[in-house]
Amino acid sequence: MIGKSINELEIGNWAEFTKTISESDVYTFAGITGDLNPAHIDKEYAKQTIFKERIAHGILLAGFISTVIGTKLPGPGTIYMGQDLKFLAPVLFGDTVKARVEIIEIDKVKNRISLKTTCTKQDGTMVLTGTALVLPPRMEKT
Amino acid sequence: MIGKSINELEIGNWAEFTKTISESDVYTFAGITGDLNPAHIDKEYAKQTIFKERIAHGILLAGFISTVIGTKLPGPGTIYMGQDLKFLAPVLFGDTVKARVEIIEIDKVKNRISLKTTCTKQDGTMVLTGTALVLPPRMEKT
Amino acid sequence: MIGKSINELEIGNWAEFTKTISESDVYTFAGITGDLNPAHIDKEYAKQTIFKERIAHGILLAGFISTVIGTKLPGPGTIYMGQDLKFLAPVLFGDTVKARVEIIEIDKVKNRISLKTTCTKQDGTMVLTGTALVLPPRMEKT
Amino acid sequence: MIGKSINELEIGNWAEFTKTISESDVYTFAGITGDLNPAHIDKEYAKQTIFKERIAHGILLAGFISTVIGTKLPGPGTIYMGQDLKFLAPVLFGDTVKARVEIIEIDKVKNRISLKTTCTKQDGTMVLTGTALVLPPRMEKT
Repeated sequence: MIGKSINELEIGNWAEFTKTISESDVYTFAGITGDLNPAHIDKEYAKQTIFKERIAHGILLAGFISTVIGTKLPGPGTIYMGQDLKFLAPVLFGDTVKARVEIIEIDKVKNRISLKTTCTKQDGTMVLTGTALVLPPRMEKT
Repeated sequence: MIGKSINELEIGNWAEFTKTISESDVYTFAGITGDLNPAHIDKEYAKQTIFKERIAHGILLAGFISTVIGTKLPGPGTIYMGQDLKFLAPVLFGDTVKARVEIIEIDKVKNRISLKTTCTKQDGTMVLTGTALVLPPRMEKT
Repeated sequence: MIGKSINELEIGNWAEFTKTISESDVYTFAGITGDLNPAHIDKEYAKQTIFKERIAHGILLAGFISTVIGTKLPGPGTIYMGQDLKFLAPVLFGDTVKARVEIIEIDKVKNRISLKTTCTKQDGTMVLTGTALVLPPRMEKT
Repeated sequence: MIGKSINELEIGNWAEFTKTISESDVYTFAGITGDLNPAHIDKEYAKQTIFKERIAHGILLAGFISTVIGTKLPGPGTIYMGQDLKFLAPVLFGDTVKARVEIIEIDKVKNRISLKTTCTKQDGTMVLTGTALVLPPRMEKT
C-alpha cells in the first residue's frame, strides 16, 4: 500500500483514471460541498446558459486528478503540495472523462515532482489542464 | 438566481462558506472520485502516517471555494476559468473549515476578476490558499 | 421487529424484493466498496466489452438476497452464516431485478435453515442463483 | 485498463484492499440494497442482540472481495462466475477490514481460476472466508 518513491520515478511516467460522469456524481458532489450553483442542479436554469445543459463541477474533475496521484502515481503516501487548474470546456452528464497525470520534473534533492495533469472527454476535447506538485512517499516499501 | 456582474463588484468584496468535515463527507468524496487513497479511508494505515489520523482530500476543500464562487461571489452565472491551490496542512474528520474568497483584481475590459481563496480551520490554521480566475455573469438580472 | 423463529417456518415459504437498478445505485455501490472496475463506471470501456454497456456489480444483487433474508424471511434477528452465489447473466442500468428466497431445508436441532436464493430480471432471465444458510431468530416475539 | 490474462497469473498471487467501515458506508449500503435490518441501522435494537452494537452487512464485506478481483487481481475484464461466502464474525462501525484474494487453482483449458477470498479485521479476526471462481480477461493488453 505504498506508492513509488522518488528513485522509482522517471520523467514521462504516467497513469490514468476514467469515469463516465453521472447525474448522481454531480448531485452528490453538490451535496457534500454545498456548491448548489444552479448550473449543476437546475435543468431549467441550465437551458438559458451557454451550455444549455447542467454541467459537472470543475473541481469534481480535479478530484479525478487527485485519484490518480493518490492511488496510482506516485500512489499512497504521496503528499499533495499544490495544484493549478485551468477549466477549458464544460462536461455534461454522461460524458466520459479520462484524468491523466504525467511526470514532467523530478527534484531529488527536495524530494519533489511536478506532474502535468489533464482531463479529456470521450471525443478528445481537453476539459481541464494544469500542473501538480507532490512529495512522493519516503517510506520504505514493505 | 443571477450573481453579481462586474459592475457590481469591488476589490475587497468577500464571502465565506463553513462546514464541519464529517467522515461521511470524506468517504462520499472518495466514492464519487475514486480517490481511495488509504490516507482517507484506512484508520490503521493512517496511524502510521505523519498525520496519525485519516485526513480529508485537499480537493474536497477546494470544492468549498467553488461553493462560495458559484453560489455567493460572484454567484450563479459565473464561469470558473482557473484555480491554483496550495495545500498547507491536513484537515481531520471533525475539523471545521471556513472557505473564503476575496476579490483582488478586476479587469472590466476582459470581464474577468481574480479572487484570493483560502480555507482555514477552527483554530485559525490556514489549510489551503490560492487564487481563482473567474468571469462574472454577463446576463441581466431578472 | 423480530423475524420468524424456526417453529414458524416451513419448507416452501418464500419472500421477494424487487428494485429497478439505477445508475446511481451502481455508482454508489462502486463508491462504498471501492469496486471501480471500468465495466461498472466507464461507458466508453463498456462499449468494447461483450456486454456493450455498463453493468451492475454481481455483489450488489447479492445484497438484495440479504435484504429479503434480513427484513422478510426469516427477518430481523436472523444470523447470516453463509451464501453461495453463481452469476449467470449481466444486469444493465434500468433492469428490474427480483430477488427471491425460498426455504429448502429446516434443521430444528441445529436451529438452521437453507434457502434457495435467486435473482431474475424483468424478462425472466435468471441472473443469480445460490443457496443461503441462516440461523432464524431465537428471541421471543414481543 | 486491462487486467491479467491467465498466462500472466500464478498460484499464490494475491492482492488486497483495506477500508475502515464507517456508519455512512453501512447506511448507504442499506439504502441502495433495501437491507434495513435493524441490526444495521437501529442502535437501540442492536443493544439487545448478542453483538450489542450495529453491525455491517456481510454482503458489504463481500463487496470488498469484488473490489480486489475487479480492480487488481485479475483486474478489469475479469468475469465473475461465482463466490461462496461464510460469515464468521461481526464487523462493527470503525473496524478496519482487509479483503484479500489469493489464486489457488488455475485451469488454462477452461480459462478459469479459483481464488481463496478472506476478510480480516485489524486485530486479525477472520470475518469472512470463501472461494471465488472467475474468468480472467482474454483481451490483449494495450
